[in-house]
Amino acid sequence: MARVSQEHLDARRRQILDGAAVCFARNGFHATSMQDVLKEVELSAGAVYRYFSGKEELIGAIVAEVLGQVHDGFEEAARSTSPPTPDLLVESVLSRVLAAKESLTVDGQPAFPRLVVQVWTETLRNAELAAILREGYGAVRETWTRIVEAYQDAGTMRSDVPPEYVARTMMAAAMGFLAQQALLGPTPVEILRDGLRALMSVRDQPDPS
Amino acid sequence: MARVSQEHLDARRRQILDGAAVCFARNGFHATSMQDVLKEVELSAGAVYRYFSGKEELIGAIVAEVLGQVHDGFEEAARSTSPPTPDLLVESVLSRVLAAKESLTVDGQPAFPRLVVQVWTETLRNAELAAILREGYGAVRETWTRIVEAYQDAGTMRSDVPPEYVARTMMAAAMGFLAQQALLGPTPVEILRDGLRALMSVRDQPDPS
Repeated sequence: MARVSQEHLDARRRQILDGAAVCFARNGFHATSMQDVLKEVELSAGAVYRYFSGKEELIGAIVAEVLGQVHDGFEEAARSTSPPTPDLLVESVLSRVLAAKESLTVDGQPAFPRLVVQVWTETLRNAELAAILREGYGAVRETWTRIVEAYQDAGTMRSDVPPEYVARTMMAAAMGFLAQQALLGPTPVEILRDGLRALMSVRDQPDPS
Repeated sequence: MARVSQEHLDARRRQILDGAAVCFARNGFHATSMQDVLKEVELSAGAVYRYFSGKEELIGAIVAEVLGQVHDGFEEAARSTSPPTPDLLVESVLSRVLAAKESLTVDGQPAFPRLVVQVWTETLRNAELAAILREGYGAVRETWTRIVEAYQDAGTMRSDVPPEYVARTMMAAAMGFLAQQALLGPTPVEILRDGLRALMSVRDQPDPS
């Protein structure tokens, strides 16, 4: 048997994960069979099962990978004493995640937002997936909480709101934006960035100027 | 046959819609049969089919009703020249909608956020439901846009961001918050309210004080 390079193994793994993501985005986890995945990636069962034991492992790997990327994106900002403002931070991380999945499409539309919504529904009845999601969300929330603490320490955000509340709110905005993409069609991330920027400017009274 | 009051008809309709909502929240639209709905509401097929022709009509009625309630909640604010700030407005409408569905539970947890996520997934493969959702979202977005215009006219929000961007962002925050409730368990709406409030206080530079 020919020796196979690590690069080749990684590329093959990537190919399988991307094909499975497209299948799940198209029909949901429940209605997708391993046969569908094999057909999508154009590989034999032997080639695929060498990497993943089945659908459960595939969806778990996809979710863990995406949440890991989101976490890494915010982690960089969390290490800074003056992280970018929330509008720019959300834009940068969300853009990066969407760009990484740009090539995956279903009926000519981006597959990723559809995949996200399908995963949420599957999570409601799949305890193992729920645990992966909860762990990934927990890590992202923890990172966002540290970023909010940096805003508050620097005096650029009021400090009488628990940082975790702000973390949850920022995550909610990004999650809801992805749901909108899935339901209403793709829209540029700049809409969310500018919407957050406008929200950051709200005053109880008009500015005295 | 005895005459039946309008009140009785309305109550019966309510009972069927609520029972169907619990079924859909529990198992999703696809895996729910009309038999499941009949069992949940403890009514005969004849009694239920008098009101609804089937699952499609039930889910459509549920979605239209909820989006109508959301729209009505914001409509009141949209008619005011000085609507409440976004944090208070989101809190008031979201609280009212959640309270209206409080009695519906699945495994002791609120059914409504689960229902929302299930509906989103069903929307991805159901063109008729997608149309109902799109129309309802469009109406809410239009109302939110007018509220944002009022903020901008009053000088309490920067006016260089298109109002529709802000409308989409506010809706995204509420949608993502509901998804979090479904996935991570119920949390008080005050978290979102205070998170938005903190976001409203963000400055590029510390306040000079």
